[in-house]
Amino acid sequence: MQTESALRTQADRLKLEVQSLRQQQGSDLISIGEYILKRFEQLHVTAMFGLPGDFNLGFLDLVEDNPNIEWIGNCNELNSSYAADGYARVKEQSLGVLLTTYGVGELSAFNGIAGSYAEMVPVLHLVGAPSTTQVAAKPMLHHTLGDGRFDAYGKAFEQITAYWGDIVDKETAAQVIDTTITMSIVKARPTYLTLPTNMVFEKISSARLAIPLSSNAPPNDPEVESQVIDEIAKQFARVQGDAIVLVDACAVRHHVRDELNEFVRAIGLPVYSTPQGKSVIDEDYERYGGIYIGSISQPEIRERVESAKLVLSVGALRSDYNTGNFTYGIPVARVVELHSDHTKIGHAVYPKIGMKELIPKLTPRLLSISAAARRLPVAKFVAPVPDEDGPVVSQAWFWPKMGTFFRPRDVIVAETGTASFGIVNIPFPRQSTYVSQILWGSIGYSVGATLGCLLAARDRGLGRTLLFVGDGSMQLTVQELSSMIRWQHTLSQDTIIFLLNNDGYTIERFLHGRERRYNDILNWEWSSLLKTLGDPKEERTVTYKAATKEELSALLEGPLATSHGGKIIMVEVIMDKYDAPQTLANQAALSGKTNAYAPS
Amino acid sequence: MQTESALRTQADRLKLEVQSLRQQQGSDLISIGEYILKRFEQLHVTAMFGLPGDFNLGFLDLVEDNPNIEWIGNCNELNSSYAADGYARVKEQSLGVLLTTYGVGELSAFNGIAGSYAEMVPVLHLVGAPSTTQVAAKPMLHHTLGDGRFDAYGKAFEQITAYWGDIVDKETAAQVIDTTITMSIVKARPTYLTLPTNMVFEKISSARLAIPLSSNAPPNDPEVESQVIDEIAKQFARVQGDAIVLVDACAVRHHVRDELNEFVRAIGLPVYSTPQGKSVIDEDYERYGGIYIGSISQPEIRERVESAKLVLSVGALRSDYNTGNFTYGIPVARVVELHSDHTKIGHAVYPKIGMKELIPKLTPRLLSISAAARRLPVAKFVAPVPDEDGPVVSQAWFWPKMGTFFRPRDVIVAETGTASFGIVNIPFPRQSTYVSQILWGSIGYSVGATLGCLLAARDRGLGRTLLFVGDGSMQLTVQELSSMIRWQHTLSQDTIIFLLNNDGYTIERFLHGRERRYNDILNWEWSSLLKTLGDPKEERTVTYKAATKEELSALLEGPLATSHGGKIIMVEVIMDKYDAPQTLANQAALSGKTNAYAPS
Repeated sequence: MQTESALRTQADRLKLEVQSLRQQQGSDLISIGEYILKRFEQLHVTAMFGLPGDFNLGFLDLVEDNPNIEWIGNCNELNSSYAADGYARVKEQSLGVLLTTYGVGELSAFNGIAGSYAEMVPVLHLVGAPSTTQVAAKPMLHHTLGDGRFDAYGKAFEQITAYWGDIVDKETAAQVIDTTITMSIVKARPTYLTLPTNMVFEKISSARLAIPLSSNAPPNDPEVESQVIDEIAKQFARVQGDAIVLVDACAVRHHVRDELNEFVRAIGLPVYSTPQGKSVIDEDYERYGGIYIGSISQPEIRERVESAKLVLSVGALRSDYNTGNFTYGIPVARVVELHSDHTKIGHAVYPKIGMKELIPKLTPRLLSISAAARRLPVAKFVAPVPDEDGPVVSQAWFWPKMGTFFRPRDVIVAETGTASFGIVNIPFPRQSTYVSQILWGSIGYSVGATLGCLLAARDRGLGRTLLFVGDGSMQLTVQELSSMIRWQHTLSQDTIIFLLNNDGYTIERFLHGRERRYNDILNWEWSSLLKTLGDPKEERTVTYKAATKEELSALLEGPLATSHGGKIIMVEVIMDKYDAPQTLANQAALSGKTNAYAPS
Repeated sequence: MQTESALRTQADRLKLEVQSLRQQQGSDLISIGEYILKRFEQLHVTAMFGLPGDFNLGFLDLVEDNPNIEWIGNCNELNSSYAADGYARVKEQSLGVLLTTYGVGELSAFNGIAGSYAEMVPVLHLVGAPSTTQVAAKPMLHHTLGDGRFDAYGKAFEQITAYWGDIVDKETAAQVIDTTITMSIVKARPTYLTLPTNMVFEKISSARLAIPLSSNAPPNDPEVESQVIDEIAKQFARVQGDAIVLVDACAVRHHVRDELNEFVRAIGLPVYSTPQGKSVIDEDYERYGGIYIGSISQPEIRERVESAKLVLSVGALRSDYNTGNFTYGIPVARVVELHSDHTKIGHAVYPKIGMKELIPKLTPRLLSISAAARRLPVAKFVAPVPDEDGPVVSQAWFWPKMGTFFRPRDVIVAETGTASFGIVNIPFPRQSTYVSQILWGSIGYSVGATLGCLLAARDRGLGRTLLFVGDGSMQLTVQELSSMIRWQHTLSQDTIIFLLNNDGYTIERFLHGRERRYNDILNWEWSSLLKTLGDPKEERTVTYKAATKEELSALLEGPLATSHGGKIIMVEVIMDKYDAPQTLANQAALSGKTNAYAPS
């Protein structure tokens, strides 16, 4: 069935080109700007992020008038790129869209787009650009570098995007737009699309819109695929089913969540996850064993994973923070790797055999090992709240405590730092969505991203959006709280921001410079922040503060136990500046060795 | 004298290379990190901007321990790049320094660095990078793109910087550092320097430090220069002194302020300025006539400039917003252009004849026209406060009113938008410094820049720092107010922020979409902002609000008339959302024509 749908996609793309070539003048004309918006609508995009600027205002008229897409005016472009990334992650099988203006706008989003590239998130960065006549004449326009290079920004973005589509005339516009969007959704990467002011209202044929764009990759070669399946089945037979499944980032980036869940539940193998694969498999599933991070895993998990005779690795992305600094204790010969665009069995690579089609075919072939698989022990993945003395909210107590607060269908966002390291070993309820930048690790990301997450969660009818962020990270992107307040009226589920006030950059204190002033920040009056940023009468927001375990427990079991009906809620939690989750301390010790400041 | 000093610079640079080559092992060893800081000290850099990140923490130890350079921890990297730019502008003949970490940090500063490139400001962007051994092995480190390309960020920055210095070994480190700094200060452009973690504490010879780096350009060829001077003198003789001087951006970027002031005062020609040249010549100088912006100049100024038989243009930078959308009514044959690296007389270009040496030699040669020059009429440059009915603070009233509040030696920062357009025709007192991004025009810039400006103003013993910024722009970079509060204790002069609350992006309403929602923002509770961002007890800050002319006048003549001893002061001024300075309305009308959203 997967092959069929992939083949259909191929055929559709060919039809598109044929139609385009045949068509001299379409009977149904549409402006280029409207064409773009129609494509977004087809992908169920309901929100566009960014800021107005003089080169995108004309297009913004169309966006504002569009009944299906909301213009989310952000406070700055970096934040808007984070929001588009968060939206794409939670929305799934859609697209994050960011609209900025030439030069000053687009370049502010550079880090955010690079993050989407690294983390493989489909974001389209649409840039309002000077008219094609201006680009040809090269006057010294504001927002240019003043030296006549009108392509410099595009060349820079080529370093961090999968494709640059430049709309230069109406003849090729539709094809450029379609290619750019397709590259984003097929490759799960950001792309860059420049829209000159004088192109926005040019009329083109709408014929191509009849055929939707698809994220399906090219179909697997049936002959090679069949050989790969035989080979994998042989491996499982050889170890008599003594295997585990290890789920990683690309399982969600390349949309095999459903196929994978069906597979693991049918076969019954023990399943573990990397930090970046967290929440792909429901963490309350009885055959799920928790998080594997190489040498910094919980000891029992490490033992189970590394002693398995075979590891079926799904969508691996082996970055340092995802692997305990590359400390996997698993020989290559014992690993079968499934990827979006290739398969690897031991040392043998099979290019172009993608997992989206492969996994559903593996399920029936491996049913025979199911009985053996189900006999393999899996320790229940739990994180009990420790019985700890003293009133201070410690990292060791806080994260398990939060585990008791999570509910099915919550969207959980964790900032890089104490939050991402502290949350990783806490089980999430079923159907949770986890958002964190384990590879890119740009602090401040989580605040912008949360805006996108909560809008996508709203679209999908998910639960609450919970953000865990430290005071240092919050300062980078704080103004985006204002956008959350601005859109609060459209929400029915609460957004709860746990502001971990630990007096500076604690993750960095563990990496280097524990007592250094450069890891300090100025303490803000967090309790008045939401009021200041747009809700003076506290009609849309609520702010709480917890300085002790008792206060936090009282909040969680009191006011936070019931819905506020879609408010933006901040809970300031006072924590010690020198306290960090054990996993972070371990990671920092490993990083310190390779990241030495000593001469080589 | 200029030639001599330029020749000396040349010789010094050659000496440096000779010494470096001769030296096998220096007797005085210094770490690469310390070498960099010594070079900064020699350029009188007292403040470094940026954020800590795991690849720059080791170097930050050296910065924190350095007694002459302060580490200004910013709230985010974009803001820090703006601050470094503002610092370099006000400090003059020095360098703005920005320190970020690999990937996530540096890329957030991309727009700020591009702005320094466009506006020609010497900023060194120093990036803490992975060790050379890591770069060679290419592991999937956090903060990388995950595809093994460790040079992608450098390639992106090459698009917007004058030079990329990559420190890769101790043998070439000193030369790489010196070249990178020299490229910044000679070209008045940002450069990019990558410092791998394992290079920071490598020891190198300190011998090169004995010879300071210089921003002097190569000397003019005496024979060509002499011919150019003859030719210019002939032009002035031909018109019998009926000429004017037009001062532009590069007069300050390439440090000819002193030479130029000496010249104009000796000869007595009428002097006008472009928006980007504002404040290079004291605006109370009796032969100074105000601001020329092509067709949107005040009519009398336009008439004087365009009817002059000869225009001596100094450091021209003819961008759209600096020229009333390229509406100069002056034929090329009537213009002599002086630039940092060439001279142009009518249509004839003389490469490599720079103004730094040329201007002092022009002074004695043109003394003969002085009597004629002094007879040319110059209308006094004034902006009287209009006698206007109604309580609302109008743009037409506000800016002249502010003119009465300025004092000699103030540093005046204006955001792109109503502020930069409103302030341009207001005379500044003598020795003022004006900071604005006329070409790049990135909104939010002024807030980050002000932090750099006030620290440089402190170093130079200048007066107050005054910022004019709208509510829309403030939201982009608001957290940097926190850094101002953090460093307030080092100030003796007040910083006064005039927050023009006009309910959204007013400049854009004039360009397009006057009534559109995309030009709206959420209103913040500005009166509690400084308290929230780090001064809950108002020990370091004061906040005022003026909703009427009367209230603003009372503030200006009351509490703001005397010093608060170095506080951060915010004055929220309520203005109408559809009101704009006349110059902005005129510019918008011109831009609208060329920037049409209609099909071409």
